Amino acid sequence: MADMAIIREVGLRDGLQLVKDMLPTETKLEWCRLQAAAGFNEIEVTSFVPPSVIPQFADAAEVLAGAKTIPGLRPSVLVPNLKGGTRALDHGAEKITFVLSASEEHNLSNVRKSTDASLAEFRDLVAEREARGLAGKVELSCAIATAFGCSIQGEVPELRVFEIAAQLAEAGADEVNVADTVGYANPHQVRTLFSVLTSYTGAVPIAAHFHDTRAMGLANVVAAADAGIRRFDASLGGLGGCPFAPGATGNIATEDCVYLLESIGLGTGIDISALLEVRAKLDEWLPTERVEGRLMKAKPAKTFRPAA
Amino acid sequence: MADMAIIREVGLRDGLQLVKDMLPTETKLEWCRLQAAAGFNEIEVTSFVPPSVIPQFADAAEVLAGAKTIPGLRPSVLVPNLKGGTRALDHGAEKITFVLSASEEHNLSNVRKSTDASLAEFRDLVAEREARGLAGKVELSCAIATAFGCSIQGEVPELRVFEIAAQLAEAGADEVNVADTVGYANPHQVRTLFSVLTSYTGAVPIAAHFHDTRAMGLANVVAAADAGIRRFDASLGGLGGCPFAPGATGNIATEDCVYLLESIGLGTGIDISALLEVRAKLDEWLPTERVEGRLMKAKPAKTFRPAA
Repeated sequence: MADMAIIREVGLRDGLQLVKDMLPTETKLEWCRLQAAAGFNEIEVTSFVPPSVIPQFADAAEVLAGAKTIPGLRPSVLVPNLKGGTRALDHGAEKITFVLSASEEHNLSNVRKSTDASLAEFRDLVAEREARGLAGKVELSCAIATAFGCSIQGEVPELRVFEIAAQLAEAGADEVNVADTVGYANPHQVRTLFSVLTSYTGAVPIAAHFHDTRAMGLANVVAAADAGIRRFDASLGGLGGCPFAPGATGNIATEDCVYLLESIGLGTGIDISALLEVRAKLDEWLPTERVEGRLMKAKPAKTFRPAA
Repeated sequence: MADMAIIREVGLRDGLQLVKDMLPTETKLEWCRLQAAAGFNEIEVTSFVPPSVIPQFADAAEVLAGAKTIPGLRPSVLVPNLKGGTRALDHGAEKITFVLSASEEHNLSNVRKSTDASLAEFRDLVAEREARGLAGKVELSCAIATAFGCSIQGEVPELRVFEIAAQLAEAGADEVNVADTVGYANPHQVRTLFSVLTSYTGAVPIAAHFHDTRAMGLANVVAAADAGIRRFDASLGGLGGCPFAPGATGNIATEDCVYLLESIGLGTGIDISALLEVRAKLDEWLPTERVEGRLMKAKPAKTFRPAA
């Protein structure tokens, strides 16, 4: 049995948040169903944000409700604050990813409050979960955005990331998700950060979220995997991008990431052929979007053997 | 002073060999001049193959002659056999890369002879160099193609690669260039192969040539760099491809590779801004080609600092 890694699909959230065309709710659910059938146990299906901010997620409650009925799937939702978290609990979310930024300026720009204020809201969300008697039932993850640098502020000190991670672990986070939101990370930086991070977070699982903006996305996945990370976010077809760099590519492509991890001996439980069929659907669903990813064109190598 | 790496531009050879439009000789030389001015000391400028096989290189002698006059540039040329090598010597080449395949079937398909027969021709080329009194003046590199697997044969045993590399070192090669011709390599395979290879090649420098066909190109560069490799081939804008996988991407993009190496602390001596200006020219020179590479769109991160 190979060592295993979990790949969480975030295309429906991180990918779609910059897509102007509204994808119908039923199509989003078809996407979830097909990808769950290909072996995905975790999909970030939507975000509980005001529809005035991101109209694409006006159907958040319907998408979550539909995704919860898919066998074998644990849908997660993103929330930017306590209000979104409370709504997600109201709608029966079983896994919630709260996001805050290690960069003070990015946090101010994103949610108009300090990082410490967001940390306090995360604690309040944990308290809300306990008050509802949902401890052990609803998983609370927290993403640390701009953990490797920020396009507004520039440098983000490693020590700040460690400090935030330690506070999240202490607050009761079930997972800490470290995100290279703007594609600034390089593999040596990744290796260093993840090698030290676990000494601040104890037994709390760490996830990694990389973008491929400057072509280092998969090299960063390898660096994180070598440092012991076993949870990775990825977006089908690399869907997504960065509002600050028009035309720049976004998330690492799920299909390329799965193929990479399997190639280096980390089983994912995912059927690559089935995944590439979902990927082909993406071209139909979003005909005007530029979709990335290499494996779709090249197909697996003749010598490829899955890890598990 | 940072640890240094050498990046050899191969766009004019590996990139152009699949390009149908003839690039005028003067444009090729302008490309060489601009890239030399950006800090490149080595450019593979052409290939000495019969024009009937690759018409793009009908002007090989003129391109080599012109490139030799560029200050600070050491142009190299590719040759597939003794005949090409002899022609290259006739035309005053100072560095010649002889190519053979570790995959027997790929070698048969490429040059219609066994790998051992190609090895014998490489030895004959070394002898020809000595006979002309050019030892110590003309550098002979040998590329081992399909070193990580072959799209025809499938698996290529590591031991075969080691055996060939040892024979090349013994024959007098000044460099052994290990190539993932079809984009089959993964980072763990790369790390393992390069960690062992040097015990077969002694003091002979090793170069690495990666394709990004399945998105692992730069992850493989990091793996090779971590194993001590300091010479890398790359192609501007990722120009190139694979005739067996239509639409599949080819070489790693030079600009992304330079940016990666500088980011992980390996100086390249290359001015990235000047390089991106040459990259912009590529769109004018080859308007119908699909050009890859992330850095051109995203530009360097605000936090980026060159290594040296």
